Amino acid sequence: MTTPATRSRENTRARLLDAAAQVFAEVGLDGASVEAVCERAGFTRGAFYSNFESKDELFLTLAASVGEVRVSAVRARVEEMAADGALADGCDPIELVQDIMDSGGDDRLGVMLMSEIRIRALRDEVFGAAYLAQEREMVASIAQIISDIVAAGHLRLREPAEAAARMLMIVWEGMTVRGAMDGQDASQLRRTGGEELGRLVSMLIE
Amino acid sequence: MTTPATRSRENTRARLLDAAAQVFAEVGLDGASVEAVCERAGFTRGAFYSNFESKDELFLTLAASVGEVRVSAVRARVEEMAADGALADGCDPIELVQDIMDSGGDDRLGVMLMSEIRIRALRDEVFGAAYLAQEREMVASIAQIISDIVAAGHLRLREPAEAAARMLMIVWEGMTVRGAMDGQDASQLRRTGGEELGRLVSMLIE
Repeated sequence: MTTPATRSRENTRARLLDAAAQVFAEVGLDGASVEAVCERAGFTRGAFYSNFESKDELFLTLAASVGEVRVSAVRARVEEMAADGALADGCDPIELVQDIMDSGGDDRLGVMLMSEIRIRALRDEVFGAAYLAQEREMVASIAQIISDIVAAGHLRLREPAEAAARMLMIVWEGMTVRGAMDGQDASQLRRTGGEELGRLVSMLIE
Repeated sequence: MTTPATRSRENTRARLLDAAAQVFAEVGLDGASVEAVCERAGFTRGAFYSNFESKDELFLTLAASVGEVRVSAVRARVEEMAADGALADGCDPIELVQDIMDSGGDDRLGVMLMSEIRIRALRDEVFGAAYLAQEREMVASIAQIISDIVAAGHLRLREPAEAAARMLMIVWEGMTVRGAMDGQDASQLRRTGGEELGRLVSMLIE
């Protein structure tokens, strides 16, 4: 049951995450202090620390939330297509992937965030372990979506779903980061990433 | 013809690159000033600026040189295997990849360098364009090695060699960065990267 207190707490967390995304986009991870995030969100440091243990936890949560938004959009689009019969035998897997990946929002924030988190994770073992644990959960969610598509389309994968999910995530990340370096906007990023995923998916399917 | 003046210049550049790698490993890209690199190498700023236009150019050259060392080691191992007949019909492509990738040195410096350069490239368009141009050359070198292996082994690729090279590079990078976050040493990094490349190679070959 959602009580008013729970709702208020969730609202505070959501506002802190929004503020963190804005401050991060403006000044990067090193420059985004707890103070700056609190000021932007209109909260005290007390409110902050009753929701997050540290700045690290805030930014890991933000990264997870950006990833979850993307994964949820993909899952919703896949369910819609399953209901329409678009996942039945004989569909073109490459077109499918591009359609699915078009469902997401702007991936530029995700690209910047992942790149800065990567540096932090390489420099700090505890942070790295927390990040890798979080990523494993995301890979498991993607693997589940892949298994659902494979079952619906009576397809056969050449690799286990987890390995396929990890490779798809790495290729998506690698292509979108290069697109962002090249100054691509959100829709170009999705196309760049989607084309390469389509290529990989066609190899993953027997 | 290599004149003594050319040799001396190459020696200066090599010492500056060595010093840059050391200083970078100690303090990161932001902390690695031209002054600190010159001091470590035992050169004046004048010697530096007669060899490199800027700190950016120095670190892009260092990244290229780390990449070239890896690509050259791979090329040498492939030529050795070709001479031994190890690339003939019927060899196991996954074992082949693992043997080939074992030829490299420590990839940790490369992982750190690429991660910091990625951030710089995302923040600065001119730097990003220079980095992407350099990377395209590396992809072309890898594509050439792939084409040579494919021809020697009478194999057939399911994707063009350039696309295969780009995907292999991205997967190698993605796996080694995660291995480094997980605290893996050089030989574990090579195994982690090599296993995933083997997986991808087996999908790339018809």
